[in-house]
Amino acid sequence: MNSTTDTPVTVIGLGLMGRALAGAFLKAGHPTTVWNRTPSKADQLVAEGARLAPTVGDALQARSLTIICVTDYQAMHELLGASDGELDGTMLINLTSGDSAQAREAAQWAGQRGARYLDGAIMAVPPAIGTAEAVILHSGPQPDFEAHKSTLDALGTVTYLGPDPGLASLYDVAGLAMMWSVLNAWLQGTALLRTAGVGAATFAPFAQQIAAGVAEWLPGYAEQIDSGSFPAEVSALETDARAMNHLIEESEAVGVNAELPKLIKAMADRSIAAGHGGEQYPVLIEEFSKPRND
Amino acid sequence: MNSTTDTPVTVIGLGLMGRALAGAFLKAGHPTTVWNRTPSKADQLVAEGARLAPTVGDALQARSLTIICVTDYQAMHELLGASDGELDGTMLINLTSGDSAQAREAAQWAGQRGARYLDGAIMAVPPAIGTAEAVILHSGPQPDFEAHKSTLDALGTVTYLGPDPGLASLYDVAGLAMMWSVLNAWLQGTALLRTAGVGAATFAPFAQQIAAGVAEWLPGYAEQIDSGSFPAEVSALETDARAMNHLIEESEAVGVNAELPKLIKAMADRSIAAGHGGEQYPVLIEEFSKPRND
Ligand SMILES: NC(=O)c1ccc[n+]([C@@H]2O[C@H](COP(=O)([O-])OP(=O)(O)OC[C@H]3O[C@@H](n4cnc5c(N)ncnc54)[C@H](OP(=O)(O)O)[C@@H]3O)[C@@H](O)[C@H]2O)c1
Ligand SMILES: NC(=O)c1ccc[n+]([C@@H]2O[C@H](COP(=O)([O-])OP(=O)(O)OC[C@H]3O[C@@H](n4cnc5c(N)ncnc54)[C@H](OP(=O)(O)O)[C@@H]3O)[C@@H](O)[C@H]2O)c1
Repeated sequence: MNSTTDTPVTVIGLGLMGRALAGAFLKAGHPTTVWNRTPSKADQLVAEGARLAPTVGDALQARSLTIICVTDYQAMHELLGASDGELDGTMLINLTSGDSAQAREAAQWAGQRGARYLDGAIMAVPPAIGTAEAVILHSGPQPDFEAHKSTLDALGTVTYLGPDPGLASLYDVAGLAMMWSVLNAWLQGTALLRTAGVGAATFAPFAQQIAAGVAEWLPGYAEQIDSGSFPAEVSALETDARAMNHLIEESEAVGVNAELPKLIKAMADRSIAAGHGGEQYPVLIEEFSKPRND
Repeated sequence: MNSTTDTPVTVIGLGLMGRALAGAFLKAGHPTTVWNRTPSKADQLVAEGARLAPTVGDALQARSLTIICVTDYQAMHELLGASDGELDGTMLINLTSGDSAQAREAAQWAGQRGARYLDGAIMAVPPAIGTAEAVILHSGPQPDFEAHKSTLDALGTVTYLGPDPGLASLYDVAGLAMMWSVLNAWLQGTALLRTAGVGAATFAPFAQQIAAGVAEWLPGYAEQIDSGSFPAEVSALETDARAMNHLIEESEAVGVNAELPKLIKAMADRSIAAGHGGEQYPVLIEEFSKPRND
């Protein structure tokens, strides 16, 4: 029988997240080996049927699919660096948070030691692991992802982004930027409306509708960016900038924070100063693509 | 017959937006009187059946529903101030952009002159007027809105927000803040991903999904704000702040703009410094509700 739940897995790192990952594999029926620097964190998992490896080397010798999820890339290197030889033939999936450069370096480092390597990023909190809500991004060689996808499915909604191992980290922070920005804009609006006695719950559906509506424009706006041409089909950046002044003035007049409104305006002003006032909003990609240079 | 399309309307101000408004009324069959400082802007509307009033006073004497849409509140006051007496008995709907204080003052000013007054805000560009896509917000006395809603329906999706005449302006800028924030976060992510050769069109559906997904949290988060209690049910602000560092570091490492990431972090850091690190994200409402004081 070829049931994917027979596939053995190893989880290295049993912090909050590692324990959730190992727990999800166990629940899905996978023979699960675990290792953690502080072994006591494996107790509950062992009670649920996990095998506790006595050393990292032993955990890796299982030569099975190995998930590593520790604090940062430095911790991963310290931990696996000690057992160089044993990486040979291992399929390593690194779900530790880091940046794209660290992921690309780690992929090279693992390759030099004879390991296959996928980099991942977890866009979820530990209690969501094992449910469809937990989005886990992967990047690296596609055949390796395909070979293990059915096993990874135990963790949540697993997604493949492309062969560049840095992609998972990049999509991760890009997604987080979107998350915090939606929340912050909503908080800005909520703060404004509360000055008029409007509750957060009253404003929320309005904000929700705008966010979802604007999100629908993105594919169309993306075409402008990819073609590098920004005709003002709907409205010109200059017109936006005038309305941005209203947002700033209103925020200041009612006494709420105006930093987000001012940043929105500053980006637009720089683009207008660069001659793009008659073009459409996505022309701001040029400002977002370079560091502030003053 | 009580057909609402028989209701006469007057439109004062025939800029880009005023012409679109008058055009939509004409198309819906309303007898439409128009006036503009520069009369030639009425030519096309007159050809379509509008009556051009020779003076503002004459336009107002029609005593019908009067929409005013000029550059700003100062222009409106200059224009209507000259014809004080004639406001008596008029139903004025002011769709000129301004802030909540200007709207409240204008409502009082109009009331003192015997006019009924609704304040409005147009969340649309002129070509969208007359379609469901054009969202037009109204605030002021509800009976006045109800009495004229069927006429206003000719302009787009008309919405009533509440009796405070300042609400339309507040919702307007709050909605715009959401719009620009979704776009800016998407541009930040697009800039990051383009450093790895990922096109804007490839990233857009991912960003879209996150924006729409996060928008769904707002009603739940609103309950926390309205109750003033922010238990870390999903994740603590401290955990978010660590990931914000990844966003800043990644942005700097790949050489894109890091101002939006830094503002996101600065707001969180201030809230953590105020002792809210163990609470959930919406606790940031306290930072958004006050001016930066340093
Ligand atoms: N928690 C979340 O909500 C969440 C969400 C998305 C992504 N992540 C990411 O998942 C990763 C793990 O997070 P977590 O929440 O599990 O963190 P955690 O609870 O703090 O656990 C950290 C883990 O790393 C291990 N570790 C740290 N330094 C080590 C070293 N030098 N040698 C060996 N082991 C070391 C710890 O071992 P000891 O037990 O011996 O200290 C522990 O297993 C992080 O990269 C985090 O950014 C977390
Ligand atoms: N266009 C948009 O996309 C849009 C979207 C949402 C909201 N709005 C708002 O709609 C309002 C009008 O915008 P618009 O696009 O129509 O602007 P516009 O094309 O610049 O037209 C401005 C209008 O105001 C009149 N005006 C200005 N100062 C005046 C004064 N002192 N006395 C008499 N009339 C005066 C102008 O008369 P003359 O023709 O004689 O100069 C003209 O009719 C603004 O508050 C704007 O913020 C516009």
